[in-house]
Amino acid sequence: MHLAFSTWPEIEARLKTSKTVIIPIGSNEQHGPMGLLGTDWLCPEIIAHAAEKQGDILVAPTFNIGMAQHHLGFAGTISLRPSTFMAAIEDWVKSLGRHGFERIYFLNGHGGNVASIEAAFSEIYSQWSWQGVRCPFALKLSNWWDLPGISPLCARLFPTGHGSHATPSEIALTWAAYPQAVRDLTMDPPIAPTGPIRDALDYRARFTDGRIGADSSLATQALGQQILEAAVPALLKDIAKFEAEERP
Amino acid sequence: MHLAFSTWPEIEARLKTSKTVIIPIGSNEQHGPMGLLGTDWLCPEIIAHAAEKQGDILVAPTFNIGMAQHHLGFAGTISLRPSTFMAAIEDWVKSLGRHGFERIYFLNGHGGNVASIEAAFSEIYSQWSWQGVRCPFALKLSNWWDLPGISPLCARLFPTGHGSHATPSEIALTWAAYPQAVRDLTMDPPIAPTGPIRDALDYRARFTDGRIGADSSLATQALGQQILEAAVPALLKDIAKFEAEERP
Amino acid sequence: MHLAFSTWPEIEARLKTSKTVIIPIGSNEQHGPMGLLGTDWLCPEIIAHAAEKQGDILVAPTFNIGMAQHHLGFAGTISLRPSTFMAAIEDWVKSLGRHGFERIYFLNGHGGNVASIEAAFSEIYSQWSWQGVRCPFALKLSNWWDLPGISPLCARLFPTGHGSHATPSEIALTWAAYPQAVRDLTMDPPIAPTGPIRDALDYRARFTDGRIGADSSLATQALGQQILEAAVPALLKDIAKFEAEERP
Amino acid sequence: MHLAFSTWPEIEARLKTSKTVIIPIGSNEQHGPMGLLGTDWLCPEIIAHAAEKQGDILVAPTFNIGMAQHHLGFAGTISLRPSTFMAAIEDWVKSLGRHGFERIYFLNGHGGNVASIEAAFSEIYSQWSWQGVRCPFALKLSNWWDLPGISPLCARLFPTGHGSHATPSEIALTWAAYPQAVRDLTMDPPIAPTGPIRDALDYRARFTDGRIGADSSLATQALGQQILEAAVPALLKDIAKFEAEERP
Amino acid sequence: MHLAFSTWPEIEARLKTSKTVIIPIGSNEQHGPMGLLGTDWLCPEIIAHAAEKQGDILVAPTFNIGMAQHHLGFAGTISLRPSTFMAAIEDWVKSLGRHGFERIYFLNGHGGNVASIEAAFSEIYSQWSWQGVRCPFALKLSNWWDLPGISPLCARLFPTGHGSHATPSEIALTWAAYPQAVRDLTMDPPIAPTGPIRDALDYRARFTDGRIGADSSLATQALGQQILEAAVPALLKDIAKFEAEERP
Amino acid sequence: MHLAFSTWPEIEARLKTSKTVIIPIGSNEQHGPMGLLGTDWLCPEIIAHAAEKQGDILVAPTFNIGMAQHHLGFAGTISLRPSTFMAAIEDWVKSLGRHGFERIYFLNGHGGNVASIEAAFSEIYSQWSWQGVRCPFALKLSNWWDLPGISPLCARLFPTGHGSHATPSEIALTWAAYPQAVRDLTMDPPIAPTGPIRDALDYRARFTDGRIGADSSLATQALGQQILEAAVPALLKDIAKFEAEERP
Repeated sequence: MHLAFSTWPEIEARLKTSKTVIIPIGSNEQHGPMGLLGTDWLCPEIIAHAAEKQGDILVAPTFNIGMAQHHLGFAGTISLRPSTFMAAIEDWVKSLGRHGFERIYFLNGHGGNVASIEAAFSEIYSQWSWQGVRCPFALKLSNWWDLPGISPLCARLFPTGHGSHATPSEIALTWAAYPQAVRDLTMDPPIAPTGPIRDALDYRARFTDGRIGADSSLATQALGQQILEAAVPALLKDIAKFEAEERP
Repeated sequence: MHLAFSTWPEIEARLKTSKTVIIPIGSNEQHGPMGLLGTDWLCPEIIAHAAEKQGDILVAPTFNIGMAQHHLGFAGTISLRPSTFMAAIEDWVKSLGRHGFERIYFLNGHGGNVASIEAAFSEIYSQWSWQGVRCPFALKLSNWWDLPGISPLCARLFPTGHGSHATPSEIALTWAAYPQAVRDLTMDPPIAPTGPIRDALDYRARFTDGRIGADSSLATQALGQQILEAAVPALLKDIAKFEAEERP
Repeated sequence: MHLAFSTWPEIEARLKTSKTVIIPIGSNEQHGPMGLLGTDWLCPEIIAHAAEKQGDILVAPTFNIGMAQHHLGFAGTISLRPSTFMAAIEDWVKSLGRHGFERIYFLNGHGGNVASIEAAFSEIYSQWSWQGVRCPFALKLSNWWDLPGISPLCARLFPTGHGSHATPSEIALTWAAYPQAVRDLTMDPPIAPTGPIRDALDYRARFTDGRIGADSSLATQALGQQILEAAVPALLKDIAKFEAEERP
Repeated sequence: MHLAFSTWPEIEARLKTSKTVIIPIGSNEQHGPMGLLGTDWLCPEIIAHAAEKQGDILVAPTFNIGMAQHHLGFAGTISLRPSTFMAAIEDWVKSLGRHGFERIYFLNGHGGNVASIEAAFSEIYSQWSWQGVRCPFALKLSNWWDLPGISPLCARLFPTGHGSHATPSEIALTWAAYPQAVRDLTMDPPIAPTGPIRDALDYRARFTDGRIGADSSLATQALGQQILEAAVPALLKDIAKFEAEERP
Repeated sequence: MHLAFSTWPEIEARLKTSKTVIIPIGSNEQHGPMGLLGTDWLCPEIIAHAAEKQGDILVAPTFNIGMAQHHLGFAGTISLRPSTFMAAIEDWVKSLGRHGFERIYFLNGHGGNVASIEAAFSEIYSQWSWQGVRCPFALKLSNWWDLPGISPLCARLFPTGHGSHATPSEIALTWAAYPQAVRDLTMDPPIAPTGPIRDALDYRARFTDGRIGADSSLATQALGQQILEAAVPALLKDIAKFEAEERP
Repeated sequence: MHLAFSTWPEIEARLKTSKTVIIPIGSNEQHGPMGLLGTDWLCPEIIAHAAEKQGDILVAPTFNIGMAQHHLGFAGTISLRPSTFMAAIEDWVKSLGRHGFERIYFLNGHGGNVASIEAAFSEIYSQWSWQGVRCPFALKLSNWWDLPGISPLCARLFPTGHGSHATPSEIALTWAAYPQAVRDLTMDPPIAPTGPIRDALDYRARFTDGRIGADSSLATQALGQQILEAAVPALLKDIAKFEAEERP
């Protein structure tokens, strides 16, 4: 069930039987010469929408802009400051919490989001913690590549050149869902350098075409399809586990 | 051209010939018993994506959550505080401005967003105004129903029962693009009451099913298609006018 | 009754019979070569103070600095950022609401304030909306020129050259109340250009002497008096209507 | 010269010979059973406006709402949070600084404002301090009762019962300027208690009618006139000293 | 008793008999050619820790960074913006208040902190004041040099050259506690100039070696010991007075 | 070299040969029935101060309060909101960066700090990233237990009952440095439960005495000494590596 494609009485009705909602969250940022700017919000959206067809889950609209300050040296990147990102997450969560959702699950597609999302969770919880009142909802963040079994699969599919940004696995995933995403380019060097992530100019100086440690050209639609088919049941299982967790 | 479905070198290349970008912006909020929660972000997205097929424009990802505090009494509504909304708009704009975009056009789908978007524009401009430096970009907000010719068309199509929230015109527009959006319900009363908009409980007490002044059941896919076909050239013309505007 | 010229026991007493308060709100900003910097806060103050002599209303101190970032290129302009303006409005409103005022009416004198004031109202209401508690007060914004009958009167008095900034009507209004405000100058060109409003340097480049579309020199004290005499009963009626409005 | 009653070209002209501006700043808050709610912004305004008639100074509009959280238990008090107050002071100062004012002098009427104004000054300065750039303007805060000679005069006029809130001196000052301000009441007890200032309910419990240590009924118009006549030259001298101060 | 060197059950137990906590608060900022950067947080810490040995008080960790924007022109200074400082004080206070502490006493070592700490207190109190609820704790700020008897003692020990920054008294105090702090230098000029405090570059231009009005070289360990021995009982008495204060 | 125990000329001199500074950062929060409230800021301070005796490093004052909202259900915990924590980190970093420090190394003692510190780094960097200017300094966060070799050592020393909060390794470390920290208690159950971390009441319900997965009673001073002796060279090596890193 898609929240945005439902009416309010339909959501009100669903809340009688399930109080869980899934939010695909990512970033719109450069992904090297071959990867789409939308890669990081498309990946969790692709997985969540595919899962919605197979399981009884409720998927919210995609939170498509995240924390990507280090990519601002490349055209097309749109970033929120961590503080803005955190405020927006707080408002999404409180809106959903107000309707009675008790388990709010973020499926994340961007490593650079993790710290800000976790900090946002603490900022939200702290409002209850200082008052000495129980927070009525539980929050969970899962990166799609950390879903059970996915990282090992990616490592198996791309034993070299997987890297950590503009990876063949994320690019393949977007190709599986959007054939128009496919680009046929040669990477130079084949495997991009690695290093620390700091400000945008530092990033651009280190990683001249945007990739980190990855050979994006290893991506194929078929491999993306394989990842997608593994990620869907993994996501459904992970959500079920979250729903089953007892709250003391 | 879709920004999220492009790579950064493609956007960098485009910036050599055009410095304009279009952002569909809306809200995810109740739209009465028949309208989708996503109506207000779907409408500008539908129009912008249709326009992208006919004209040479660059469309950013959709800004899908807006200022909908008054709808929080209805399940599924997700709102940002005005202050959060403004901060997020600032970050989007500054990200795009940093890459060299000089005309940033917001196509809006939610009346409740207007004040906050305009306030955000002022907050952004003020940073240049206090420094006595020229702001490198120009911002424009257009509501899709205010595109040339659209309001009169909607009035003609729905001479009674158009109203101002959960209107048959916006619902029809979503139906034209998404057949699964169609619902067949009888409205009771056929035409909803009108009144001022304040906090969420006041709203729910005044407008018990969420509609304001509208008979949503007048919507049809065919009428939505008619609105869409009028809105696309109107949008392209409005963007062209914005691009042609001289900056002193 | 003037709040600032009352004691607290007098206000406490009044609250037993009336829970309405009027706040004149404006801006201190350039008004072309003839208009006072204070024009936009003086106009609503003049009208509200005149109305106070004729009707039983309670008038708060004037909120004299608003959102005028676009005028910062002209000496003497004082502006708040929208975010500061909104925070201040919130504090005024919550202070008055805490004492039991239930209808808080802003009589505004500056078009550039409207978006920020409306956004502030939403920011205030949202604090109740998220908690699911009814906001104890209602807020209303009226521009003095939008009071019933005033715009048509101004259009009749100044069929050409009214414009939208440094208008002869607002200048005439200040002259009616403050003879020392009168300046005798020739405008060049007689009617100023029009155009969009952006940052301060853009504004100064477009509107070199500060006026927009107006021939300020059409103002006379007599015409200002005429506007004032029409505005006073219009304001009293508008307040009465606000007070009579039922809250569900 | 009054800034609000000038045009922008007049201020631009003045800036060629003087770069100093005076801002009366106060608070709108309870002043016991006899004192006006406006006392604290009226007093500095009265003194500054009287000084403007005698000396060549430029007076800005009055900043009429300050930090009065502790008085919120009494009807009619309007307070800003310290953080809002500081942001507003920053915006006033930066607006004036942008036009070329180099000495910005706040004449304050409310003891409760002092900490927030000083903190605001530091917040403003810090923006230059971190950048290692010289701040182009100097800020000064003077409480009217701290003007040379005023405190001793007040102590002489009111050897007992002067106190620190709703003092006979500040009330007398408003009476000297506004005869309609005069109230004839007996204070009970004649001299109010003293104690620490904390939150609003604590305040109301300690100081039941709002006064601290003061017998407001000692005020007379004649004594107010005497204070005013001493304060005007004291203010002009203090401003002259500020203007004469060398900046290294 | 030291809070940081206790376990939570020990603090829980103590709260049954005493609800008071002492927070040493200062700044890390230049103190001229002889004074330690830590002087302003070391002094209150030294006094509070010595007092803890003699009286039954609970001392929190030291709040070691304060508002020192004016010292940023000298290497090693670390400053918080007033707004950050205030937010941090609010969080400390609310954390302690949540556990049931009802008297929170700040022993301050930096004059430049005073305005921001007082403004923070008002910001904290105001949250209760607007809600009309009694704040459950009382806050008190004492500068160590304002403890009963200390200023006169310092004036007696250093009849000339005490000054107001990098004073021999504060430096002597650090020497008494930390012999490694002692430096043997000649001051040039012996007594530093005085003047107003503004931004960092203005400060550095006025006070070239960082001192204000002080001859730091007058400090000795023995004099520091004398001050410490006077300050300890003065602090214990001041805390006892705070604890004894009745709350209405 | 200790920054707080140096004078500004000494720091200015050091900056000529080294531009690196170490900040011990932690939290003041419950650590079960045996662990000190200060454990998490004491541990990095203990290691950094020991390292300062062996290597040529500059150690800043300890940042002793962190993000501990989940521990607020236990007496003595002091927490900053993530947003406050981030603002404070920004001010520390910008202060040090202004003096010319180019490598700012945080040695962290609290897992709950990590997300907020990383988010703060991004907030800081983003200010340069949006302007397209290179950030003049590099930031690094290391948790002491993640220093090379330390985690494996702790696992070896405590093969069972190490857990993740109030661990025997962190408690042992404080005992090694502060004999008065030692407590002799029996844990019940010996090994505490594990689970997710959310708001304070949820935490207290899950982890009734505060520990997570740990048997704190396994700590001994000797084991703490062993950890300390391993951590010191590991820290010095990690700093050297950070200093040696080339910046493109």
